[in-house]
Amino acid sequence: MNIQVAGVGLTKFGELWDKNLFDLALDAASEALQDAGLDGRAIDAIYVGNMLSGTLTGQEHIGAVVASLIGSNAPAMKLEGACASGGLAMHAGVSSLLSGQYETVLVVGVEKMTDAPPNKVMAGLMGAGAEEERLAGLTFPGLYALMAKAHMAKYGTTKEHMAHVAVKNHYHASLNEKAQFPFEISIEKVMKSSRITDPFTLFDASPITDGAAAVILTVESRIKNQELRKKNVFISASTVATDTISLSQRESLTELKGTKIAGEKAFAKAGVSPKDIDVVEVHDCFTIAEILAMEDLGFCAKGEAGEMVKNGHTRLGGMLPMNTSGGLKACGHPVGATGVKQIVEITQQLQGRGGRKQVEGAKVGLTQNVGGTGATVVIHILQI
Amino acid sequence: MNIQVAGVGLTKFGELWDKNLFDLALDAASEALQDAGLDGRAIDAIYVGNMLSGTLTGQEHIGAVVASLIGSNAPAMKLEGACASGGLAMHAGVSSLLSGQYETVLVVGVEKMTDAPPNKVMAGLMGAGAEEERLAGLTFPGLYALMAKAHMAKYGTTKEHMAHVAVKNHYHASLNEKAQFPFEISIEKVMKSSRITDPFTLFDASPITDGAAAVILTVESRIKNQELRKKNVFISASTVATDTISLSQRESLTELKGTKIAGEKAFAKAGVSPKDIDVVEVHDCFTIAEILAMEDLGFCAKGEAGEMVKNGHTRLGGMLPMNTSGGLKACGHPVGATGVKQIVEITQQLQGRGGRKQVEGAKVGLTQNVGGTGATVVIHILQI
Repeated sequence: MNIQVAGVGLTKFGELWDKNLFDLALDAASEALQDAGLDGRAIDAIYVGNMLSGTLTGQEHIGAVVASLIGSNAPAMKLEGACASGGLAMHAGVSSLLSGQYETVLVVGVEKMTDAPPNKVMAGLMGAGAEEERLAGLTFPGLYALMAKAHMAKYGTTKEHMAHVAVKNHYHASLNEKAQFPFEISIEKVMKSSRITDPFTLFDASPITDGAAAVILTVESRIKNQELRKKNVFISASTVATDTISLSQRESLTELKGTKIAGEKAFAKAGVSPKDIDVVEVHDCFTIAEILAMEDLGFCAKGEAGEMVKNGHTRLGGMLPMNTSGGLKACGHPVGATGVKQIVEITQQLQGRGGRKQVEGAKVGLTQNVGGTGATVVIHILQI
Repeated sequence: MNIQVAGVGLTKFGELWDKNLFDLALDAASEALQDAGLDGRAIDAIYVGNMLSGTLTGQEHIGAVVASLIGSNAPAMKLEGACASGGLAMHAGVSSLLSGQYETVLVVGVEKMTDAPPNKVMAGLMGAGAEEERLAGLTFPGLYALMAKAHMAKYGTTKEHMAHVAVKNHYHASLNEKAQFPFEISIEKVMKSSRITDPFTLFDASPITDGAAAVILTVESRIKNQELRKKNVFISASTVATDTISLSQRESLTELKGTKIAGEKAFAKAGVSPKDIDVVEVHDCFTIAEILAMEDLGFCAKGEAGEMVKNGHTRLGGMLPMNTSGGLKACGHPVGATGVKQIVEITQQLQGRGGRKQVEGAKVGLTQNVGGTGATVVIHILQI
């Protein structure tokens, strides 16, 4: 059965102090419905990706909230898997269509983070990691720094290599009106900004963000929008893998096993290989994470990603444009929205609606969404 | 495609101060795996129902945690929909099998509530309701009391009718070694206990509970346990409906529209009617909720449920034994576990493993799991 993207919606990402959790979800959902030429009554089920609404807003049960917002009595549920919540909501939505129970579903990813005190946000985010890591005082910058240090020691990856990830993603964000940081930065800016945890400076890290993204998935050709019908985007693979939640129990600090498992399954399912991919969104919560993703997805050999980024191969116009949205780093990272935003970006790229950041002739795209330090990884492959 | 219950597991429900969130999840999952004669490597995907682990324990991302606990790299995700989280995890598990992506999945419902300060638990639980209700100072006892008052005014339902629900469920719990309150109470005890919100006394309300339940679902006849193979239990319907999250926006206070929609769909899907049901678990978070469920599921006409309970028809030995586990009221209500525990209870009843609370000759069972005041309702029908 073919699963198609029937419509997409995306709010501005950033510090959106005039929008609450519900506004963001409704804005993205409404835009996706409009894009698909559907109204809320056409939706058979709703899957919401969100991590922190209970902790930061006091609002759990947001599947039903979103159903109410679009005036629907359809089945609705929230999917949570830390920063991979959006990807998991996509996966559940795809499953539900393949099951034959539903024909058109709405997937919404949303997070409202900037109204809460930073210490509450930090404590909430640490819920993505292992209890022993929290009790030891580790934070996500610290955990990813451990992986970066191991990668530097084993493969000779440098701070400059990582800085190139940030510079590229800021360049892409400068072409994206929805991005939180739509401006360019230099290698020097990254290297000389405040140290947050060795080897990372401030510009190696993704920000705290408000935002929402929505995708309408459907079976067969139920798409109302005639223009989009000519550019049907199909989900050809939706895979998930898990790994130990604690870094200390991993076999390796220089790769994400979850990415490798989910990636291999996704390529097999879609019948494509890494060299067939034209455009990619990966989970660059820290610059090292993009380097790990490139290698673990098989876009290059282990240890080669740093040079590949430095040489511009993943920049717009290069052989494999990566994070054309600006990524988590510069487009922003509203946790539960990220995995859905990746689908929005790839869909628009494949439909030629990428605007100034359009990858010419893109036909096959991939998204990689990560929870915690890799305990959950969700991969989607989209094709036109 | 037939979806079978391959194994079930259930912890003791209660104030389990020697067990944490992870212990509970692992205990239930291990028991279900043993019951099915499988080990963790046989599990293709994991669906965890939980509402409050982020708020109360600081641990989100518990899909991946449960995968780690059973030594698996399988896809895993948390489903949340307030007190219907367990039912939603079941629904997602069923969908995933129907989709053809997976062949054997583990569904775990878990909640650890008694270690947190009561005000934090209460604030967390209010995340199941509407923002305007929270801001107005309403609590769940208050919201259900509004529904009870409306039902009393419209149909003549009495406090004594509601007390009979509590007395029956405590009787059933007295036969269930896993129950939080395994003792009988009298009508006088209910009527004369502390008033919590008119018309409810303490014994009209379900408690705060720790506990976990697990179910292994599989396609075809992959069940290892030869004895159980003779008593295969099938999921013949899994349906979900939503309603407005706020009571103030509902058309009626005396029925749950979500129950009616999901119930009608479930009966149609399973090809059975209310009169075919032999044993039922409904979501009796307050005594009035069991009365609403009986009527909205079509087991009797509107306004007749009170007398039906009073006359013993839903007591063990009656025409339609309801909440043989003791229900939320007396078996306990570990929020995310409840919807999965209902499946465990019905499965054991259909397999003749109900122990002292066995319903003789039960062949068709139904579960109804509710989130908030009915914004989410999940129905399952099981058959042997």
